[in-house]
Amino acid sequence: MLEPTGTAPGLVVPADLAPPVLVLPGPPAELQAMWPAAVADPLVTASIRAAESIRQETVRIWGPPESELAATLRQHEVDRTTAGLEITTCMRDGELEVVTRFSPAAADSYASLAAALDAHFGEQIYSTDGRDIDRVVADLLLDHHATVATAESCTAGLLAGRLADLAGSSAYLVGGFVTYSNEAKTAEVGVPAQLITDVGAVSEEVARAMAEGARSRLGTTYGLSTTGVAGPGGGTPDKPVGLVHIAVAGPDRTWHRRLQLGGDRTTIRQRSVVSALHLLRKALTTT
Amino acid sequence: MLEPTGTAPGLVVPADLAPPVLVLPGPPAELQAMWPAAVADPLVTASIRAAESIRQETVRIWGPPESELAATLRQHEVDRTTAGLEITTCMRDGELEVVTRFSPAAADSYASLAAALDAHFGEQIYSTDGRDIDRVVADLLLDHHATVATAESCTAGLLAGRLADLAGSSAYLVGGFVTYSNEAKTAEVGVPAQLITDVGAVSEEVARAMAEGARSRLGTTYGLSTTGVAGPGGGTPDKPVGLVHIAVAGPDRTWHRRLQLGGDRTTIRQRSVVSALHLLRKALTTT
Repeated sequence: MLEPTGTAPGLVVPADLAPPVLVLPGPPAELQAMWPAAVADPLVTASIRAAESIRQETVRIWGPPESELAATLRQHEVDRTTAGLEITTCMRDGELEVVTRFSPAAADSYASLAAALDAHFGEQIYSTDGRDIDRVVADLLLDHHATVATAESCTAGLLAGRLADLAGSSAYLVGGFVTYSNEAKTAEVGVPAQLITDVGAVSEEVARAMAEGARSRLGTTYGLSTTGVAGPGGGTPDKPVGLVHIAVAGPDRTWHRRLQLGGDRTTIRQRSVVSALHLLRKALTTT
Repeated sequence: MLEPTGTAPGLVVPADLAPPVLVLPGPPAELQAMWPAAVADPLVTASIRAAESIRQETVRIWGPPESELAATLRQHEVDRTTAGLEITTCMRDGELEVVTRFSPAAADSYASLAAALDAHFGEQIYSTDGRDIDRVVADLLLDHHATVATAESCTAGLLAGRLADLAGSSAYLVGGFVTYSNEAKTAEVGVPAQLITDVGAVSEEVARAMAEGARSRLGTTYGLSTTGVAGPGGGTPDKPVGLVHIAVAGPDRTWHRRLQLGGDRTTIRQRSVVSALHLLRKALTTT
């Protein structure tokens, strides 16, 4: 038994033919306090020493549907082998994650799998070293000594809020504009009122004007924008719920994407934020 | 057995002396499809008819610590009775929630408890009808035909993003400013650069200037601001991590709160957003 640090004691249960069973409390503070004693127990030390180290690698992909990834993995299994690889895939906010666990003996199998993913998905792969898109974008901005400003309609600040999630974000996030009403789009980032009248607030033209306006108003390297119909109301046959235009204005050009997203209001707004981060990555890796 | 609508069938298990046991699938789509058949089963219908209806009431409180609520509940139990009341309390983002479930026979006990809470906490109670702070603030803004604009530093858009969470928010949210850098505070909402030099960006004076600037730039009824040290870096002895100033500028005056929050960067930013919503409620219920 390991002395309790809260109410629950820890247990190390010996087993004849298998590694010992280690039982630890769930609350992080209790677990952390007990950890040194747990790993110092001779039975635990011995089984840690005897254990084979398991590697875990993560490939993160943006763009393709989950079915395309599944087909690629199936084809690779046929062509070569995935023996010794424990592969799990996950789709979240449109991002695909391939997590593979394997023992050192299967390192060649994994190298072959990684090469196959690289050959098929190429630049759609945005991380192979564990970083998420927030960290990837932050590192690119830092590397380029680049700064950003936002102009957000449907996401209404969530994109800027996310850009500020990481400590140290003041190195690249200068500021932003929540241009929720049409009047705010004109007053804050100079979108011509006539343009909104002509093509509507949810349009490629307005998304571009917002991104360029944010960039110009705050003198940043990049300007990011979102404008869309988050629902549940406000959709029309031409501009249904889930239609979102995003743009990234850079020094030399402006990138634009038209998204047609499914899901509820929260999902549409969240997915718009993630899409804008990926469009910014594209801008940062293209220039 | 109830016909499966997905892969799992439903079950109605009769029991001699107790209500029947009803087993239904978890996936919402499967559950919903099976629901009409489940409640139409004669055993289920009979036990629903025989069941006593249970009331559930929720009192939401902003301001006091959880210990004060616990003391109030203990005192009430001594003075009167809480027999027949199943009371649970929960603290989240600084908001206290008292959920009470009781059978109609205990309605008087509950009325007495509700009166005791009202007597002790008064205006700190912001909801007794199930609405959360987002809905309470939205309804107040709609009732007052009032509009809002934001100027955010440490929360960097999360407050505006939250004000846009509810469908129909375009009726009151005009826009906002993410004034993350000092330069953005000056350029976007007109905070004098000299003021920032004199008292620092994290100060009552700058919070007030930001709220008033946002209000004036977008011509809204209210302007809301946040400026603070979200950490983990950036703290000083005078202005430690967790120090946040928030302000709400209205037509006649500006409200301000100095917060000293615990927790990590995410918690501090999240709690700042919630505090700003409650300060806006105060402004809306005071004027």
